[in-house]
Amino acid sequence: MSTEKLPARSENFSEWYNQVVLRAELADYAPVRGCMVIRPYGWALWENIQQALDRRFKETGHVNAAFPLFIPMSFLEKEKEHVEGFSPELAVVTVGGGETLEEPLVVRPTSETIIGYMYSKWIRSYRDLPVLINQWGNVVRWEMRTRLFLRTLEFYWQEGHTAHATEEEALEETLRMLNVYTDFAYNEAAIPVIPGRKSETEKFAGAVQSYTIEAMMGDTRALQSGTSHFLGQNFARAFDIQYLDRNNQLQYCWTTSWGLSTRFIGAIIMTHGDDQGLILPPRLAPIQIVIVPIYRSEAEQSQVMAVATQLHKQLSTRFRVKVDDRSEVTPGFKFNDWELRGVPLRIEIGPKDVEKGVLTVARRDIPGKAGKITIHPNNLEAQFAQLLDDIHHALLKRATQFRDEHIFDPKDYEELKEVVQHGWAFSWWCGSAECEAKVKEDTKATTRCIPLEQPGGEGRCIVCGQRATQKVYFARAY
Amino acid sequence: MSTEKLPARSENFSEWYNQVVLRAELADYAPVRGCMVIRPYGWALWENIQQALDRRFKETGHVNAAFPLFIPMSFLEKEKEHVEGFSPELAVVTVGGGETLEEPLVVRPTSETIIGYMYSKWIRSYRDLPVLINQWGNVVRWEMRTRLFLRTLEFYWQEGHTAHATEEEALEETLRMLNVYTDFAYNEAAIPVIPGRKSETEKFAGAVQSYTIEAMMGDTRALQSGTSHFLGQNFARAFDIQYLDRNNQLQYCWTTSWGLSTRFIGAIIMTHGDDQGLILPPRLAPIQIVIVPIYRSEAEQSQVMAVATQLHKQLSTRFRVKVDDRSEVTPGFKFNDWELRGVPLRIEIGPKDVEKGVLTVARRDIPGKAGKITIHPNNLEAQFAQLLDDIHHALLKRATQFRDEHIFDPKDYEELKEVVQHGWAFSWWCGSAECEAKVKEDTKATTRCIPLEQPGGEGRCIVCGQRATQKVYFARAY
Repeated sequence: MSTEKLPARSENFSEWYNQVVLRAELADYAPVRGCMVIRPYGWALWENIQQALDRRFKETGHVNAAFPLFIPMSFLEKEKEHVEGFSPELAVVTVGGGETLEEPLVVRPTSETIIGYMYSKWIRSYRDLPVLINQWGNVVRWEMRTRLFLRTLEFYWQEGHTAHATEEEALEETLRMLNVYTDFAYNEAAIPVIPGRKSETEKFAGAVQSYTIEAMMGDTRALQSGTSHFLGQNFARAFDIQYLDRNNQLQYCWTTSWGLSTRFIGAIIMTHGDDQGLILPPRLAPIQIVIVPIYRSEAEQSQVMAVATQLHKQLSTRFRVKVDDRSEVTPGFKFNDWELRGVPLRIEIGPKDVEKGVLTVARRDIPGKAGKITIHPNNLEAQFAQLLDDIHHALLKRATQFRDEHIFDPKDYEELKEVVQHGWAFSWWCGSAECEAKVKEDTKATTRCIPLEQPGGEGRCIVCGQRATQKVYFARAY
Repeated sequence: MSTEKLPARSENFSEWYNQVVLRAELADYAPVRGCMVIRPYGWALWENIQQALDRRFKETGHVNAAFPLFIPMSFLEKEKEHVEGFSPELAVVTVGGGETLEEPLVVRPTSETIIGYMYSKWIRSYRDLPVLINQWGNVVRWEMRTRLFLRTLEFYWQEGHTAHATEEEALEETLRMLNVYTDFAYNEAAIPVIPGRKSETEKFAGAVQSYTIEAMMGDTRALQSGTSHFLGQNFARAFDIQYLDRNNQLQYCWTTSWGLSTRFIGAIIMTHGDDQGLILPPRLAPIQIVIVPIYRSEAEQSQVMAVATQLHKQLSTRFRVKVDDRSEVTPGFKFNDWELRGVPLRIEIGPKDVEKGVLTVARRDIPGKAGKITIHPNNLEAQFAQLLDDIHHALLKRATQFRDEHIFDPKDYEELKEVVQHGWAFSWWCGSAECEAKVKEDTKATTRCIPLEQPGGEGRCIVCGQRATQKVYFARAY
């Protein structure tokens, strides 16, 4: 860790973000333009995200599988909107084993096409449905402007792909998985996302409807944090995914897809972090509790380390705990280091604590003395479980409050133009692409989502004044 | 599942293998030449392999991370032997975002080079060492002749990459991980692999020494099932991985790499399977116990299903259990189906069992009546744990016996030529590449490994008759 001070989050959010990612050793720049290396601390965070999601996928009946990295170029061309959306961003393999390939292979930007092809082979009858498969893997999109985690050429994600007998079931699945993402964001990451539907302009290339969870970052910009798509019969027709129904009639399937990526790590950083660095939500933090021994003499060291070691052993049965026993740096350096890395709880053990038989604990989410607590060592596991739970709820509450303070209901278009500079506008919208485009041109803000929760009734479009039956969030986005 | 009979394993091992993989729905052919789709049942097996290995990696101090899929062509060229070994098998991205790339990007065939580059950035002092990182991911090697799991263009694996201050530590690490693989093969997969060193000819491109675990398949051919490489300072020099030692002197690191891939699934299939299909080792099997209800009337059905459901609930707390409640197929069909899929234990519940209050259990590893056991429902979990354990040991014993019966100590070269047609030869070898090449030319058998366990003493090379101090396994291999 560098000892140089971080840029202030309030002054230069963008540079603060870059520095936090690098200095907390979450990720590093790769020697290939736009690619990243996810370092062990960042990957441990991703593994915890994976586990929390995978558990939910399996509880809702999904299984994992693995489809090829390479997709024949001709596959993408089978779904017109899909190829239009993705062809500008493709990485293409043209040489294999020293020979020029007859048909170039695309490095998958997403897998609807190749999975659709396999489903058409596997699905024969209604008895084979639904097919509920998820894949954890890497995908590549040739982005021009990249940011660590937020937008990289290669990124890691999961992509669920399901096939159903009826439209209704596929729509249910689309919303079920949106709900899984929402639940995950609130209850694991303490991020109060807003679930909703994407506009026609913003939807996935090839989808009938796209749903999203949108999160507000610390600079008030929006981050699309997970998406769930109802694909109708678009891919089923393109890849001939058909089944014999109970009446022995051949029918096209209805399909969905849904994904959440390493971008979500960006959401965690930018939702919870502060001027000292990361603040990791306790349920996902790779290290939940760090123990820092404090001593001046060798006698003190052995006394303090004995307690630290015992404590580590006791707490490790239930929590992710680390003892920082480095001898080459001071306790003060360690405090800063673990604050930068966002560890939710720090236990400081000095000779006085040992003498008194108490523990001094510092909460990462409450800086300075206000966050320091003295704990008596009875029923320690329950006390720490409670503390971590408290931090989760405090982070969620703070983020919700920040979000709600920065959502505005502008009275007219002039005010909309102003509020999207420092927040989101929640406004009636007629639904036309023209009004959406105008806002984008005037303010750089886009429609983020038409939230599932609507006030009801109707109003006038904030842009054109026509009758509107839905409210939408306008915001500048990552 | 098709109801057609499998090819007999003893008659057409190769076709038996292909059919088992496809019909048990472990994997399928992808629409890209040489690539595979790993289906949910196969992926669940891989997930269990991953967990068993990952736990061992973490216990030995390793952490996971993720490095880029793409490697600049120039990186590979920095290590002479490495590029010579891998350049015929590369997939190359030449177009990105619609533009021809200035420098082509290789889809990683292995990651020593790009990880070496990053280590040179991260490692500064002896305090940063050792670096013990593993990566789970996909790699691509442009193979001409492919087989599902055994040799595919894209495959999944883990690759560990470590950097150390001294040669001794790096050698220790190399052997530590070979030992982890050996332990995993014996204690999770019930495969009695033989750990040993690769010859100069057979070693990894860029390694100083390669170690391997070699397994004997059911047709007596050898399968290299995991490798651990001591890379010396070859990659440290090529990528300038240096550190300041305790005396403030700049030193090159010593590095290792080690990997185990989805190929190991092929080893499991070909070690344990029989004419009925797969036999999965219980500790890795995605389904350890399948419950098949048997009934003729609706009254029987509700009676039997009540017991099946209760049993599923009880056993699921400790085992991976499935109730096969399909109504469109007969119990006999289900028996065949789960035998094909290699589930270690099958519980058959019919009205008579319900009446008597007992369970009929069939062991997959003992076909027919001999494998049927009647169980009384007291302390069920302990009984099933014992049964699964028994199966593990029975499989390991059988495979060990088969292996040992097919390892020969030929008295002369003529006999060697004969025995490698139906087994392995364990023979003194002078160590020369010429003798190795002669055996290969005459018999297609290669040196598989110089086992760590040696008889000691010395003998005469089986090929040239010169003095030899080591014995080696010669075998035809996958």
